[in-house]
Amino acid sequence: MMPADVFQASTRGPAAVFAALQARFGDRVTGNATIREQHGNALSEVPNQPPDLVVFPESTEEVAEIVRCCRAAGVPIIPFGTGTSFEGHVNAPFGGVSVDLSRLKSILAVHDVDLQCVVEAGVTREELNRSLRDRGLFFPIDPGADASLGGMAATRASGTNAVRYGTMKDNVLAMTVVLADGRIARIGGRAGKSAAGYDLVRLMVGSEGTLGIITELTLRLHGLPEQVAAGICAFPTVKAACDTVISTIQLGIPIARIELLDEVQVRACNAYSALDLPEQPLLCVEFHGSPVGVGDQIERFAEIAGEYGGGELQWAVEPERRSALWRARHNAYWAARGLRPGTKGISTDVCVPISQLAACVVATKEDAARSGIIAPIVGHVGDGNFHCLPLIDQGDPAEVANGRAFVDRLVRRALAFGGTTTGEHGIGQSNMKYLEVEFEEPALDMMRAVKRALDPDNLMNPGKIVRLSAPML
Amino acid sequence: MMPADVFQASTRGPAAVFAALQARFGDRVTGNATIREQHGNALSEVPNQPPDLVVFPESTEEVAEIVRCCRAAGVPIIPFGTGTSFEGHVNAPFGGVSVDLSRLKSILAVHDVDLQCVVEAGVTREELNRSLRDRGLFFPIDPGADASLGGMAATRASGTNAVRYGTMKDNVLAMTVVLADGRIARIGGRAGKSAAGYDLVRLMVGSEGTLGIITELTLRLHGLPEQVAAGICAFPTVKAACDTVISTIQLGIPIARIELLDEVQVRACNAYSALDLPEQPLLCVEFHGSPVGVGDQIERFAEIAGEYGGGELQWAVEPERRSALWRARHNAYWAARGLRPGTKGISTDVCVPISQLAACVVATKEDAARSGIIAPIVGHVGDGNFHCLPLIDQGDPAEVANGRAFVDRLVRRALAFGGTTTGEHGIGQSNMKYLEVEFEEPALDMMRAVKRALDPDNLMNPGKIVRLSAPML
Repeated sequence: MMPADVFQASTRGPAAVFAALQARFGDRVTGNATIREQHGNALSEVPNQPPDLVVFPESTEEVAEIVRCCRAAGVPIIPFGTGTSFEGHVNAPFGGVSVDLSRLKSILAVHDVDLQCVVEAGVTREELNRSLRDRGLFFPIDPGADASLGGMAATRASGTNAVRYGTMKDNVLAMTVVLADGRIARIGGRAGKSAAGYDLVRLMVGSEGTLGIITELTLRLHGLPEQVAAGICAFPTVKAACDTVISTIQLGIPIARIELLDEVQVRACNAYSALDLPEQPLLCVEFHGSPVGVGDQIERFAEIAGEYGGGELQWAVEPERRSALWRARHNAYWAARGLRPGTKGISTDVCVPISQLAACVVATKEDAARSGIIAPIVGHVGDGNFHCLPLIDQGDPAEVANGRAFVDRLVRRALAFGGTTTGEHGIGQSNMKYLEVEFEEPALDMMRAVKRALDPDNLMNPGKIVRLSAPML
Repeated sequence: MMPADVFQASTRGPAAVFAALQARFGDRVTGNATIREQHGNALSEVPNQPPDLVVFPESTEEVAEIVRCCRAAGVPIIPFGTGTSFEGHVNAPFGGVSVDLSRLKSILAVHDVDLQCVVEAGVTREELNRSLRDRGLFFPIDPGADASLGGMAATRASGTNAVRYGTMKDNVLAMTVVLADGRIARIGGRAGKSAAGYDLVRLMVGSEGTLGIITELTLRLHGLPEQVAAGICAFPTVKAACDTVISTIQLGIPIARIELLDEVQVRACNAYSALDLPEQPLLCVEFHGSPVGVGDQIERFAEIAGEYGGGELQWAVEPERRSALWRARHNAYWAARGLRPGTKGISTDVCVPISQLAACVVATKEDAARSGIIAPIVGHVGDGNFHCLPLIDQGDPAEVANGRAFVDRLVRRALAFGGTTTGEHGIGQSNMKYLEVEFEEPALDMMRAVKRALDPDNLMNPGKIVRLSAPML
């Protein structure tokens, strides 16, 4: 039976699709309002725009069937992993069918010798890492959430390990993709490198479901390091902390993680986790390698930190002591929210050349102070990427406007410093306006041309990434 | 004055273009037969197909003017760097204008702190590295030839350092590209990472001039390592050498170079360079890092090599002693040619998952023995990439046919092992038939769709990478 509210955004399309999908997938297709709402954006302040239907395929072939069915009816198709993106990627602004990939859950192969695995798109990074642990392997990309690997590839995710291990761009070797016409493409390969034709894998990584649906991935793995050491070190100023980061990277110290918490964030963490860290900018670092190598890295890092006025480097190798040292970083998001209960943060994600990092962070902090906004900062500073979280009472329109204006200045400032709107969250809906500031023509035209070439009917996650100059919907 | 032989492949197009370009560029455009021949393939056994004209622009804007002029006349445009590709990339199978970028020679900026530089496409890697040396920086990608950086990006080049530093895919941050319609696009950016829209930079890297002409690049640099140590070690079998490589990588030893020479190649090097290396498979390795780190790497590598029956690890840190140790590797190509004077090698470039490397190399050596072909092997084995160079008397049709059949089996064997046709040389003309074996539809259709989207008239280096199902010329 068809729920009454399915066809709010009604056209002939969804009705035809619902009937066809129900005949084929039975109760694996639903128009239930709660489930639909869960499949629109639910995590950030971007408004929820639910799809008309949600379907739960269990194989690549089923995804292909769904795409063919939607295409025949002219209905949009929105892939869904875990719904943990911030930028409205899973919203359905034109209605359509949310293709929930969470049942594509198989780890199809682990090639130990090649440090590779093949997974279905719905496997999450923590599920993968749990299954790899006994083999001494791990997959290093760690956005905060336990996201699906398909979603992580689609949004070009990264996280705290990127300074050493790269982003999803660097760790996907091959893919199975369902194209807009419902055909199943296998792109990339298992060789460690290739110069064979256009790099279709890198084209799909970060395409946010707008060029096809990723259903299977071949990923690069890494051996669990023989030794891991974590450390924290307080600095007199943000600039001193940033200069320490720059020197560490310039000297080629292969640091695995290097995260900045500004003093506002440290204060939040002290309150939230009952810590007594000095309320100064803090670097949280991690070193991976052989015992000798890690010892060498720690010694060299401590020397650099000392030169820039860093306090004592506290470090640990035992897992529990490492976790204790990194507790501030791990709880940063909830601690930040706790600074002003009842507010919501506006997620931001700029990334600048590392030489501009200190200047950009300092200017942003000054702007926050001037604007009367509490905005703690956490940064993947090895990459020049930082998240500033202005805490805004979403019920107060003036405050919302003030917060939005602050974010607008933040993004434009980062672009003026030679940076990018988004280091790792993606464009989705909310950053589309900034993509048009970041790139001049004809770069945006190139993106539109690629989009039209691979999705001529604009049915694959429409309304994301790039505005098509002549809307086809 | 127009040379008589300009219009061999005559259409109205080239005549109109010649007049227009000569009016604009004077003696920087030529139809001289010798220069034209130098701008067709001249390095490998792929037949020379010269362009109708050669033009020497001196800026991105001039390249754009040339493209607009050619487009108006419907004449193909073939970018030319140093002409050092093996696969016919610079040939003009449909005639057209060779755009020689060698005068785009400026190093526009070096951002020391960011470990980045901005160069024009005609700068070669050795020119760049000479200019960087005093700053303590280097650009690590090293195909054998002193190729132009634009050409290296266009062919997704790599070389011996890729196991540590990646390929051109990993080391280009941004680009200026002249598109098929003559517009100038700036793509990518200077941030260390970005999730802002489609990865146009990675789409252009490896596109071989078929989607546009790269005129400017922002590259990732690296600090010169504090210490460099080189080493060589002989092994009883190819398998033992490959197993050593696998263990080295699995243990996460950050080796900078790890090259295999098979015993045929070692014999060639002994003869060519008057060395007395044991005529066994040889690994040439290089370690980069701090003195402590390099010492640790050497110790750990020596232990692994010992476990697989490797002979004594000879190693050195002083530049001259390092060069002496690596002399065999440096002279490998000419030494190989010296094994059978008067012959030419057919260049090959397969790359397989590292677990399949020993099996693939051994099967290839057995095939060579069965086929009566001398085919020394040099491999970037850390990536699973190896070059087998069958030495063929190009004047003997039966021998040529035997050599071609051997290469055909080699590529198909690598593909059967899960590998790729080309790890670093590219598709060009000679590997087009193998691209169609390596990928199934609709992957090739995706490539065609991208090509048509960005070059609807098929004027950008036509006849390379992918066969368009309906030829547009």
